Amino acid sequence: MRDFSTDHRWLSINTATVRRQRGEPWPLPKILDACAARGIRAVAPWRDQVAAAGLGATAAQVKALGLELSGYCRGGMFTYTDDASRQSVRDDNRRALDEACTLNAPCLVLVVGGLPGALAGTPAHRDIALARSQVGEGIAWLLEEARTRRMPLAIEPLHPMYAADRACINTLAQALDLCDALDPAGSGSLGVAVDAYHVWWDPQLEAQIARAGARRLLAFHVCDWLVPTTDLLEDRGMMGDGVIDLPRLRGWVEAAGYAGCSEVEIFSRANWWQRDGGEVLDTCIERHRRSV
Amino acid sequence: MRDFSTDHRWLSINTATVRRQRGEPWPLPKILDACAARGIRAVAPWRDQVAAAGLGATAAQVKALGLELSGYCRGGMFTYTDDASRQSVRDDNRRALDEACTLNAPCLVLVVGGLPGALAGTPAHRDIALARSQVGEGIAWLLEEARTRRMPLAIEPLHPMYAADRACINTLAQALDLCDALDPAGSGSLGVAVDAYHVWWDPQLEAQIARAGARRLLAFHVCDWLVPTTDLLEDRGMMGDGVIDLPRLRGWVEAAGYAGCSEVEIFSRANWWQRDGGEVLDTCIERHRRSV
Repeated sequence: MRDFSTDHRWLSINTATVRRQRGEPWPLPKILDACAARGIRAVAPWRDQVAAAGLGATAAQVKALGLELSGYCRGGMFTYTDDASRQSVRDDNRRALDEACTLNAPCLVLVVGGLPGALAGTPAHRDIALARSQVGEGIAWLLEEARTRRMPLAIEPLHPMYAADRACINTLAQALDLCDALDPAGSGSLGVAVDAYHVWWDPQLEAQIARAGARRLLAFHVCDWLVPTTDLLEDRGMMGDGVIDLPRLRGWVEAAGYAGCSEVEIFSRANWWQRDGGEVLDTCIERHRRSV
Repeated sequence: MRDFSTDHRWLSINTATVRRQRGEPWPLPKILDACAARGIRAVAPWRDQVAAAGLGATAAQVKALGLELSGYCRGGMFTYTDDASRQSVRDDNRRALDEACTLNAPCLVLVVGGLPGALAGTPAHRDIALARSQVGEGIAWLLEEARTRRMPLAIEPLHPMYAADRACINTLAQALDLCDALDPAGSGSLGVAVDAYHVWWDPQLEAQIARAGARRLLAFHVCDWLVPTTDLLEDRGMMGDGVIDLPRLRGWVEAAGYAGCSEVEIFSRANWWQRDGGEVLDTCIERHRRSV
């Protein structure tokens, strides 16, 4: 297992971590500058942040700063209610792929979607099996587009508490079953993003990480599960402040052959988003060395 | 599949559903009277409510009203940090068993516990595998006591969002693996409580319910998953108000041989606990007929 304690060359910052600082929301160019100034070598930006900053300008800034991406957030949201919404989803995912290529991302991360309409509070139906079927169909379609562009797709299983509204793929086993069905050869074009927050509880986790292996492990995300957790979405913890045994989990991922970044992604309305972004980044570096 | 639309003979009320009504907290004797007055035949009371009302008095009232229990809430919380806390847990579970016998419950429901100390906000460690091992050990011990008393134990897998602080058994597969290890013969002394709220998202659910079969299916609980869900514990929905396909789930349970009650358990700080208890019970009856 790699020693993270003496440098942070394998740290990546998901830019949502410092996007909503109180009083001074950080736009993407500022986040990229602040990361580079601290010797952080990798980032994972969100599409809306890139759109606000401009795709070309972001690509140029990333290059000029010597940064890399650990992934691009995000494609997915495949579930639909009619032909028009299906087409709209496909068009949007095609654009996400093109952006990922422009930014030279190593993969496009997929949050696959839940019951259509649920995120807006108006679920169109209760058939999660149908949603899962549409997700499989959507990824099968996108995979063809992705292969043409040589852009790997990383399915991110989300915690089961997001099954209704954000992602109906909720375990690593389920994501890998889909990978095996759609890419049986393990070509490297389809894999998973393992986010500790979403999967730490899974009794099958160690076995499924081993099953994934290096060809399927495209990204590794960290933050921490707080006790108590006071919000389903925006109360994620800084590494070391919660109950996830992150070094053990990273050990499993690395034993399976993963040698990429450890990407910090923290949504924290009441704590980290209330602090100065520089303090948050400094804390990420310190905790990456000590608690991951 | 049984027709629930014309009567509510298979409805049970978990007494937490009407325990915290604003302005007029309902004590257990009042809850039992209100259920019986509506032709509700079964209840599942909590230990603290029984203690407040008196065990003997509760048993007498249940009998006088012609009520049955669909389960007794609850034993478990098996994880510990030292010999003294382990002994304390065992003593407490033995008392729970005795109470369940006095009340003529069909099973003692087990919420197995998470990381020790986590529920109080001070987890003693991050080793969920150790917690799971202690749970297995605790249930193995309790099973001997339970067999002596002929009181079945029902392991309730809780939603993964409770893995840290309430229960580190989080899927039906995991609960059934434990049943198979501790009671390979399927004697009827060890099984599961399937709560729709906790398991609805599980892609393995249908298969695991079939695997459980009638010998292991000791209880079936319903409420609904709301979108959005605003609290991890106390924002559960009335049946029909959320996204769980309850009739489909009940169909699977009944196809596996379950023929017992459908127990309503709703923790709802901002909605149902704010209403008159009689209105809540009437709504449970109506939704039991229409949405379960």
